[in-house]
Amino acid sequence: MPEFLQLVSVDEARGALLAGTAALTEEETIPTGLALGRVTSRDIASPADSPSFRRSEVDGFALRSRDTHAASAALPAYLSVMGEVLMGRAAGLALAEGQAALIHTGGHLPDGADAVVMVEDTQVSRLGEIEVLRALAPGENVLQVGEDVKVGQVVLAAHVRLRAQEVGALMGLGVTHTPVVRRPRVAIIATGDEVVPPEAAPDPGQVRDVNSYVVEAIVLRAGGVPRRHGIVGDDEGALREAARQALDESDALVITAGSSVSTRDMTVRVAQDLGPPGVIVHGIATKPGKPTILALAGGKPVLGLPGNPVSAAVIAMLYVAPVVEKLLGLEPAVRLAALRARITRNLPSLAGREDYIPGRWIDRAGEIWVEPIFGKSNLIFTLVRADGLIRLNADVNGVAQADWVDFIPFSGLALT
Amino acid sequence: MPEFLQLVSVDEARGALLAGTAALTEEETIPTGLALGRVTSRDIASPADSPSFRRSEVDGFALRSRDTHAASAALPAYLSVMGEVLMGRAAGLALAEGQAALIHTGGHLPDGADAVVMVEDTQVSRLGEIEVLRALAPGENVLQVGEDVKVGQVVLAAHVRLRAQEVGALMGLGVTHTPVVRRPRVAIIATGDEVVPPEAAPDPGQVRDVNSYVVEAIVLRAGGVPRRHGIVGDDEGALREAARQALDESDALVITAGSSVSTRDMTVRVAQDLGPPGVIVHGIATKPGKPTILALAGGKPVLGLPGNPVSAAVIAMLYVAPVVEKLLGLEPAVRLAALRARITRNLPSLAGREDYIPGRWIDRAGEIWVEPIFGKSNLIFTLVRADGLIRLNADVNGVAQADWVDFIPFSGLALT
Repeated sequence: MPEFLQLVSVDEARGALLAGTAALTEEETIPTGLALGRVTSRDIASPADSPSFRRSEVDGFALRSRDTHAASAALPAYLSVMGEVLMGRAAGLALAEGQAALIHTGGHLPDGADAVVMVEDTQVSRLGEIEVLRALAPGENVLQVGEDVKVGQVVLAAHVRLRAQEVGALMGLGVTHTPVVRRPRVAIIATGDEVVPPEAAPDPGQVRDVNSYVVEAIVLRAGGVPRRHGIVGDDEGALREAARQALDESDALVITAGSSVSTRDMTVRVAQDLGPPGVIVHGIATKPGKPTILALAGGKPVLGLPGNPVSAAVIAMLYVAPVVEKLLGLEPAVRLAALRARITRNLPSLAGREDYIPGRWIDRAGEIWVEPIFGKSNLIFTLVRADGLIRLNADVNGVAQADWVDFIPFSGLALT
Repeated sequence: MPEFLQLVSVDEARGALLAGTAALTEEETIPTGLALGRVTSRDIASPADSPSFRRSEVDGFALRSRDTHAASAALPAYLSVMGEVLMGRAAGLALAEGQAALIHTGGHLPDGADAVVMVEDTQVSRLGEIEVLRALAPGENVLQVGEDVKVGQVVLAAHVRLRAQEVGALMGLGVTHTPVVRRPRVAIIATGDEVVPPEAAPDPGQVRDVNSYVVEAIVLRAGGVPRRHGIVGDDEGALREAARQALDESDALVITAGSSVSTRDMTVRVAQDLGPPGVIVHGIATKPGKPTILALAGGKPVLGLPGNPVSAAVIAMLYVAPVVEKLLGLEPAVRLAALRARITRNLPSLAGREDYIPGRWIDRAGEIWVEPIFGKSNLIFTLVRADGLIRLNADVNGVAQADWVDFIPFSGLALT
């Protein structure tokens, strides 16, 4: 165990943790209608051509393009209308030379037809006959079989998170069941003699558990299954036993420290002994979250979060959510998720340290600025007023009012 | 029924729809641990002071500040250590003049003590005695009772959506059950003789329902309860009956049109007759989505979506999701949700019309650009490749490569 904190950069710390975290290989096949927010476990190929039949793209008349050769408003082509294609039915018609059929957008092109003239480009000359006022090219206004998607074509790659449009697209191809990655199980243990459950009436000296519930919600939103394992007091043997059992049943473990230094040291020793390689990062050049502990136990990530609620929440957003994404086989995109916004006031920071300051959107005459929110880091209500985190990178020495800064909206962190 | 489309602007259209949509007043009280993504139905006041006892903010010694008057490294104050405050316990000590007690971060301040000196600012002189190397002010390093939150103080206003930090903050105050707005029920009806369920094998002329499932997912993500009422053919009586029944049981109704003009006209007539005032917008100056139908039937919003999947999805994101938010009592923030990014290529647009073009993030040497994705608007896979929507406002006549544009990330649209 290192006697002094070896501070590593945020990128190194997260990189080391995620590099040691393997994507889950277990999959399950579930109804696509219930798969919103889940992640594909394999490439998904289309079971059929789409469209599966030649469709009209417009309202008009299906025809044989050669019958309109050199047609114009001055010299229209005359075609006899031999029927109508009903919506939702096979055309059930075959065009002979000089024939056309009324057709609607999405209608099935009759045999013999190879183009559709828009109704605007026709005139009714007499009953059962139309004048076509322009020449049509073969295929014009026709959606060909397989033009959107060909049978066997991969329409969704493995490790894509399903949003509304993916669910709809799969349904449209008849993929009513989808193979998805099993949801990662993340065990959560709170520590500290002073910590009691929220439903308890705390005695003097006691505080209610906040961190387990914040981490639980962050895991849930990232697509994992949180499993709270309650509160363990400042008893190394008990924590060791609880941690081993929790990690056995789960894919990752989060331990939230009590507020005293002794519980943190205890967490380090327990994380070190859960399995090789043990603690890989003990101390990150970041604020809040310097005393964060990152470990790997036989390929499973173990995170020791600082005790104070704001630090624990920020570190959970920036490290626990990406771990869930990595377990799902996604590329955690925390750095990309930062947007640029101008800041409403000066902010000091220390070069060499990456700072995260809660901030909120301010609309200044249609332009989005971001305003830092200050407050003691043990007050979770600081985060309640915030829309996201302002990031001051390690290479800057503070920013001035109106400077552009990175802003990570909470909505961009691990989405279901 | 208007014979010609009366196009209104996006802001007018959405404004009129939301102005006529009343927030639900029904509430339910649920376990806070299950309330992630739900919306508070009333102000929530703290049931207690937080902290509920005087806590140390540091590791050190609790003492009486007057005993350190004028103390310095050269002339320290000598205090006798009469005990230790254990974590999670009432201090159970009272300091007399000249006494101090060992205390940890978060520990309960003993009676008589009014400040804590950090361990770094002390020296052990002999067993049971410390030298205090500086003077302490009353209250220094002490978190006072109620300093975070006072009993009765409103900690969360009505109509706030609970994120991880709100759940944790409430738990920390012992608010283990939270009053939330009932989830709005949104009925969904698909229309079109050509539309069949995803599990069917479509015959020529038939296509699978995509739009019901896209709308379902968007409603779910926005915090509503979607209720699919299946597919109704091009039969005005049947649609009228289905719409009336669906709206009876729900707080809003979404009808997705078939691809033919006749189903759209039928939808207008049905929406008009569901209740006063009927159709309020029939045609929006926007692309895609011009033929969108917005109606109000006795205070309940009714939306007729265009038939093609991309248009339906975009309109659902921009109008259905805000309706769910309004029903929840939230301020729909679609306009604010737009971020600024530079565009990778020229894009034409028509002044007077608001365009939404699917786009994806591109990382150009650490700077985020947005690239438009082109594709026929009936191909839902265009949206599968997109991260959000580029918005070209009605006052512009296209944009040039490297211009700044508004970008609405899908992740910023209606979040749970």
